[in-house]
This record gives sequence, C-alpha cells and structure tokens, in this order.
Amino acid sequence: MKFSRDGRYLASVSEDGTVMLWDAKRLHELWSKNAPLLRQQGRLLLPKTALRGLPRVAFSPDSKRLASGDGFDGIVVVDVETGNAVLPKLKGHGGIVLSVAFSSDGRFLASSGTDHTVRLWDARTGKNIHIFVGHSGIVNALAFSPDNRTLASGSLDRTIKLWRLDRE
Amino acid sequence: MKFSRDGRYLASVSEDGTVMLWDAKRLHELWSKNAPLLRQQGRLLLPKTALRGLPRVAFSPDSKRLASGDGFDGIVVVDVETGNAVLPKLKGHGGIVLSVAFSSDGRFLASSGTDHTVRLWDARTGKNIHIFVGHSGIVNALAFSPDNRTLASGSLDRTIKLWRLDRE
Repeated sequence: MKFSRDGRYLASVSEDGTVMLWDAKRLHELWSKNAPLLRQQGRLLLPKTALRGLPRVAFSPDSKRLASGDGFDGIVVVDVETGNAVLPKLKGHGGIVLSVAFSSDGRFLASSGTDHTVRLWDARTGKNIHIFVGHSGIVNALAFSPDNRTLASGSLDRTIKLWRLDRE
Repeated sequence: MKFSRDGRYLASVSEDGTVMLWDAKRLHELWSKNAPLLRQQGRLLLPKTALRGLPRVAFSPDSKRLASGDGFDGIVVVDVETGNAVLPKLKGHGGIVLSVAFSSDGRFLASSGTDHTVRLWDARTGKNIHIFVGHSGIVNALAFSPDNRTLASGSLDRTIKLWRLDRE
C-alpha cells in the first residue's frame, strides 16, 4: 500500500492480486484491476500466504504512472487516473513478478520475482536494459539507493545483493 | 528491505525475524539483532509465511534511527550505527507488531499488527498519542501521506482505512 509522492493517490494490492487505486483526497476508488497473479489456467502458482504483504506496485516519481506485476511473466505500467496501459507489457521474467520499483529520477524501473532474477528496464520505453543473475531463490524485495547508483535485492535464498548501476 | 534516506544504510528483516543493518557504501554488516518475533516460549505466534516480505523496519527521516517490531507487544527504536536502543521499548500492542512507519517530518511513528489496532507515537519521546480502532483483522501495512496529515492502514480484513491526523 503506497501513496503517490504528490499525495493524491493511494494504491494497494489485495491478497487475490487485485490492484486498487484510490483518490486519497476525495476518498473514492478510481479503478481496480484483477491481475491473474495467483492462478494460471486454474493452477495455483504460488502459496497464497507467500504473496501477503508484498509491495507489488510502485508509483513513478511524477505520480502519473503505476507499475505492477501482471500475470505469469509481465509488468504493466498504467496511467494512475485511468488504469489504462501506457506501455506495452514488459515481458521477459520466467515467473511471477513479486516486486517493482522506480528509480527516484524516473529513468529506471526494476523488477524481480519467482524466476530468481532482477531486471532493469527503461521506464520511458519499456526496453529491458539488464538482467541481474545471482540469486538462488525467489527475489521478493527491491530498493534503489537514494542516488540511484545501486539497486538492492532481497531473496528467500537469505541473501541481499547490491547491484551497481553506474555503467548502465 | 530499505535504504536510509541518506543512502548510507540498508536495513532488512529475514524470515526468522532477525533485523540486519549494513553500511551500504562499504558493504559490511554493522549489526544484527534477533527479534523474538516468531516464537514466544517455544510457541509459534504466527504462521511463518504470513510474515514474509513485510516491511517491519523503518528509518527515521534523518537516517539516524531505526524502528522495528520486537517480540510480542513492543517496538524498539535504535541508533542505526550501534543498534542500541535510544528510547524505552514502546509497549501497548496486544500482539505482534507487523508494520512501522515514520512520518516524513520525523515527529510521529505509527505501528500496527496482529491486535487489529493502529497506534500513533511521539517519535522523540516514545509516548503513545492515539490508538486507532476499527479494523477487524491483522493490520499489516501502513503509510503516511506525503503531507503527514493522513495515515493509511491496510488489513487482512480486506479494507484500507484512512485516519486523519489533523487534530493530533
């Protein structure tokens, strides 16, 4: 559950994978979107409890876009007002995307998930820039350092890795 | 897993409740603290999976203190460099504290957990200011609005509540 930086919006993900977006001032729901996160063709992809509390949405720093994991291998970036996609679906992960994060300068989007990888994307074009390989478990936490030169990833392999972005 | 605002520190909580604090520049661990979060006198308090991925630590905006749930009913606020408590343990929750958040002006600390309540504390003195009652389930997510006038709480009761802080 997160506020946009301008305080106008509040986004959350419920246990069943539904992304909800509220107008935080007028206290009404703007839109909601059922992400087929938990089930694929009737098959449970991940224990429900493993998803609980995970921050699977991220506002862009300008508070205009929201990124979230969507389905089995993708990330959607939508307009916060309408919920409509503003980029083609970001594809490549070989599994469920559990965490997304924008860099504070708005240039990059990072993602991670059940395929043990961390991926860096151009936030404006959706182009994949790099795939960070090294974790041996689900990667369920991501954070850019305040200067955006480092990306930290936390995994169920019980390690945290720091990835230098200087040369990207 | 979070960076401090000044980028010097990285904090995380592992699955067993251990809080770890790293120097994010020099890449070494400063300290770790085993919080007796999961077990009390040998008894499992909460399913392990229910805790996974929850942001149970928060840096103060000045990057000098770290707050985390500690044990069955408390919150500890420590010096990030040393891991030593800078306030007496904040007590009152009738259950495990699952989420903590500082207001961006550093004045307030909010907490929530398995007792279904949201609590507001004076971040400098540790004094309890208010108890917000209304959720009918575990409260596992908290966020201050950017202007610190609203506190949002997300619960396993499938609701999000907005608490006005104007009169505090």
